[in-house]
Amino acid sequence: MTKVTVTPVAFVDPPLLNTVGVHQPYALRAIIVIETSGGVRGLGETYADTAHLTRMEAAAEAIIGLDVFALHRLRDAIDARISTLAVTGGDGVAGMITTASTTDRVFSPFEVACLDIQGKTLGRPVSDLLGGRVRDQVPFSAYLFYKWAAHPGAAGTNGLPDGWGEAIDPGGLIRQAHRMIDRYGFTAIKLKGGVFDPDEEIAAIKALHAEFPGVPLRLDPNAAWTVETSLRVAAELDGIVEYLEDPTPGLEGMARVAERATMPLATNMCVVAFDHLEPAVRKRSVSVVLSDHHYWGGLQRSRLLGGICETFGLGLSMHSNSHLGISLAAMVHLASATPNLTYACDTHWPWKTEDVVKPGALRIVDGAVPVPTGPGLGVELDEESLAALHQQYLDCGIRDRDDTGYMQSIDPGFVNSSPRW
Amino acid sequence: MTKVTVTPVAFVDPPLLNTVGVHQPYALRAIIVIETSGGVRGLGETYADTAHLTRMEAAAEAIIGLDVFALHRLRDAIDARISTLAVTGGDGVAGMITTASTTDRVFSPFEVACLDIQGKTLGRPVSDLLGGRVRDQVPFSAYLFYKWAAHPGAAGTNGLPDGWGEAIDPGGLIRQAHRMIDRYGFTAIKLKGGVFDPDEEIAAIKALHAEFPGVPLRLDPNAAWTVETSLRVAAELDGIVEYLEDPTPGLEGMARVAERATMPLATNMCVVAFDHLEPAVRKRSVSVVLSDHHYWGGLQRSRLLGGICETFGLGLSMHSNSHLGISLAAMVHLASATPNLTYACDTHWPWKTEDVVKPGALRIVDGAVPVPTGPGLGVELDEESLAALHQQYLDCGIRDRDDTGYMQSIDPGFVNSSPRW
Repeated sequence: MTKVTVTPVAFVDPPLLNTVGVHQPYALRAIIVIETSGGVRGLGETYADTAHLTRMEAAAEAIIGLDVFALHRLRDAIDARISTLAVTGGDGVAGMITTASTTDRVFSPFEVACLDIQGKTLGRPVSDLLGGRVRDQVPFSAYLFYKWAAHPGAAGTNGLPDGWGEAIDPGGLIRQAHRMIDRYGFTAIKLKGGVFDPDEEIAAIKALHAEFPGVPLRLDPNAAWTVETSLRVAAELDGIVEYLEDPTPGLEGMARVAERATMPLATNMCVVAFDHLEPAVRKRSVSVVLSDHHYWGGLQRSRLLGGICETFGLGLSMHSNSHLGISLAAMVHLASATPNLTYACDTHWPWKTEDVVKPGALRIVDGAVPVPTGPGLGVELDEESLAALHQQYLDCGIRDRDDTGYMQSIDPGFVNSSPRW
Repeated sequence: MTKVTVTPVAFVDPPLLNTVGVHQPYALRAIIVIETSGGVRGLGETYADTAHLTRMEAAAEAIIGLDVFALHRLRDAIDARISTLAVTGGDGVAGMITTASTTDRVFSPFEVACLDIQGKTLGRPVSDLLGGRVRDQVPFSAYLFYKWAAHPGAAGTNGLPDGWGEAIDPGGLIRQAHRMIDRYGFTAIKLKGGVFDPDEEIAAIKALHAEFPGVPLRLDPNAAWTVETSLRVAAELDGIVEYLEDPTPGLEGMARVAERATMPLATNMCVVAFDHLEPAVRKRSVSVVLSDHHYWGGLQRSRLLGGICETFGLGLSMHSNSHLGISLAAMVHLASATPNLTYACDTHWPWKTEDVVKPGALRIVDGAVPVPTGPGLGVELDEESLAALHQQYLDCGIRDRDDTGYMQSIDPGFVNSSPRW
C-alpha cells in the first residue's frame, strides 16, 4: 500500500435513548482509504473518537509499504506502533464496551480495506475471501429504540423532528416497529432497553409480542439490572424473547442469571475480546455472543470468533453501533460467509439519513440485505458526500461520543449507573 | 471445477516401529487433482485406505461444478454426499487417531487443492490466502523411530536395508539422530516411543539429552502407558523433554497425568476434532494440541484450531503421518501463516525416497523448510512419478494401512493393546 488516509465524518443521528444517556445529534465515524501502487483503492470504516483517531493515524503511517495480503504483519505493525502511544480510552461506544482489545479495534478497518483490495484485484466479492457465502441474503432485525421526537434545544440543523416520532411507551414502540417493518420487511425485532423501569420494558416487550406474534424478540438493557431484577424479568419474558441481551454486568453476574433463566443470554458487553472467551466458557456466563468486526479484529478474526462459538456450543449473533455503508457491506459479507450466524443481525442502518457510499449497492428487502456479488466490498465511495460529512464533523463540535454528557445537558439529574434497577 | 481425480499411490517406507506395530513396506497416499474450466490445476494429498478412497471418490463427484472459492458449500456438498455412503473406518492412520471428523478428513485435500488454484489464479502463494506468512522458514523436528535395518521376509523390491540402519536401543537412536541432523540441520528431536519397556525409552531420551544438550526433545508413546506409568516417566524426564505427547489414552487419563506432570502434555490422539476441544479445555487434559490439516478439515480450519489454541491458552504444534511433497507444501504454507505455531513441526519427510512432485521446490535447510513464494502451493506434479507410484499401489497389494497385522505376520505373539505398560 502506498497511501492510507483516515477521514473523520459526522452524520445526523436521532435522539435514541439507552441506559447511559441519549445519542447526540451527530454520530461519528472514520473512513479509511488504502491505495496500492497499482491504483486499487480499499475502504474501511470505524469509530472516530479522538483517542481512536490518534491511534488510527499512527497505524496508517506504520503500515505504508506493507502488502495487502500480509495481514498478520499488518496487525503486528499496528500493535507495535500503537503500544508506543500515550493515549487512553476512546472506544467510540460510550463506555458500553469497556475492555475490547485496542489492537483488534485499530486493526479492523485496515483489514477490511485490505480485503476490499484483495477482492477487487481478484475480481471476487469479499465473501469469497472468507470461505464463500452460505446465504445470498443476510437477515437483520428491526432495531427499536425508545426515543424523543426530536433533539431538544439548539442542535444545529438537526433540531427538527426526525420523522420517526416519539417512542417512550409501548404504543410509541409499536408505531415505530410497524413503520420500520413496513419499510424494510424485518422478521425479527430487537428493543434497546435499560431506559425505563424494568416493568415498563416488560410491558413493552409483551405488547410487541401481542402485536407481532411469532416474530423473534430480543431485549437489551445494556447491563442495567441486578441479578435479581434480571431473573425477575427473565421469568416474566419466559417463552417471549429468543434471547435476553446483557441483563446484568460481568461474567459472574451473567453466569448467575444464566443458571436460572430459561432463555439464552446474549452479550456484547462481557465478552468483547478473545481474552474473555475462556472465562466465559468456564463460567457458562452466556449462550450467545454478538460478534462485531469493528472490535473483534476485522472479518477474518470475526470468522475465528464464529468458529470458536461453534466449537464451544455458543450461539452467534451480530452487534451494531451507528454506522454507514462501508460497515454494512463488511457486516453483510462476513455474515453471508459465517454458517453458524443464524440469528438476524443488528443494524442501526434505518436510523441514518446520510452516507459516504454511493446509493444503490445496499438495500434491505424482506428484512435482509442481498449480498453484493461484485469485486471487493461492492460499495463505492462518494467523494462529495465524504467531503460534506467531514465538513460536518469539523463543524459539529463533537469529538468524542458522550451519550451521558449529552443527556445531562438536558436532564442535569441524570446519573449513569449500572446496574440501575 | 470441471474435473476432479483421486489417484492412490504407494511409496517405499522403512520398517518404523510404533506401539501398534510396524510400518509396512509401502505407505499409501491419495493424490487429488482439481481442474478448472480455465485450465488451472490444484493439488491435494491425503490418506488412501479403501474406505477413505470410497468417500473421496464420492466427494469428487459431488463437487464437480462448484466454484473453488465456495469452500463452505464444497464442505456441505461433501458432508451431504458421504453421509449417504455405507462405509466405515479407513482413517489411514492405523487406529492411532480414532474419532476424527470424517467430513473434515474428506474435505481437507479438496480444500487444499482449491487454495492451490486460488493462489495460482491470483499469482500469490497459499500462505497469502491464510493471512500472510509470519516466518520465511518453517522449523521441523528430527523425527526419530525405533526401527529394524530392513523389512524382514519377502517385501518385494523393498526387502533390502534402507541405509538408515537398525535402531533398537539408545546407541542406534543416537546414530540415527546424528545422521538426520547432519543431513538436515534439525534443532529439535522427537522420538516415537511406546515400542519398548518405558525404562528403555527413558534411557533413550536421557542418552539423546546427553548427546544433544540444549536440543528440545519430545517423546510420543501413542498412549502406551497407564496414568501411573505416565507419571513415573514424567518424573524421570522432568526438565528433559519440552513436552510429553499422548502418554496415556483418553481425556480423563491425560487430565490425571497433566495435574501432576511438570512438563506440558501434547496430543494428537485425544483431541483430533473440534468436538474434543470443549471437553479438553474443561478437563484441562492437555497443554499443547498437534494440528494436522489432513484431519482438522484443511488449512482454513487448521487456522481456526490455531486461533482456538491461542484463545484458550493452549500451545500448538504440528503432527505428521508418512506423506509426500504436496502435503509438505501445504503444511509449510499453513505453519508459515500461523503465528502461535511456535514448536518445530513433525514430518516423516526424511524417511521417504519417492515422491509425486518435481524435485527442488521443497528442501530442509538448517532444520527448516523455506516457504515457497510462487503462486499456489508452489509444487508441481510429476506425471511420470505419479503414474509409477500409482502402478506401485496397484502392484503392492496393500489396500489399508495395517501396522498391527504386518507386525503379527512377523511376530505372531504381538498384541496391540493400550495402555500396555
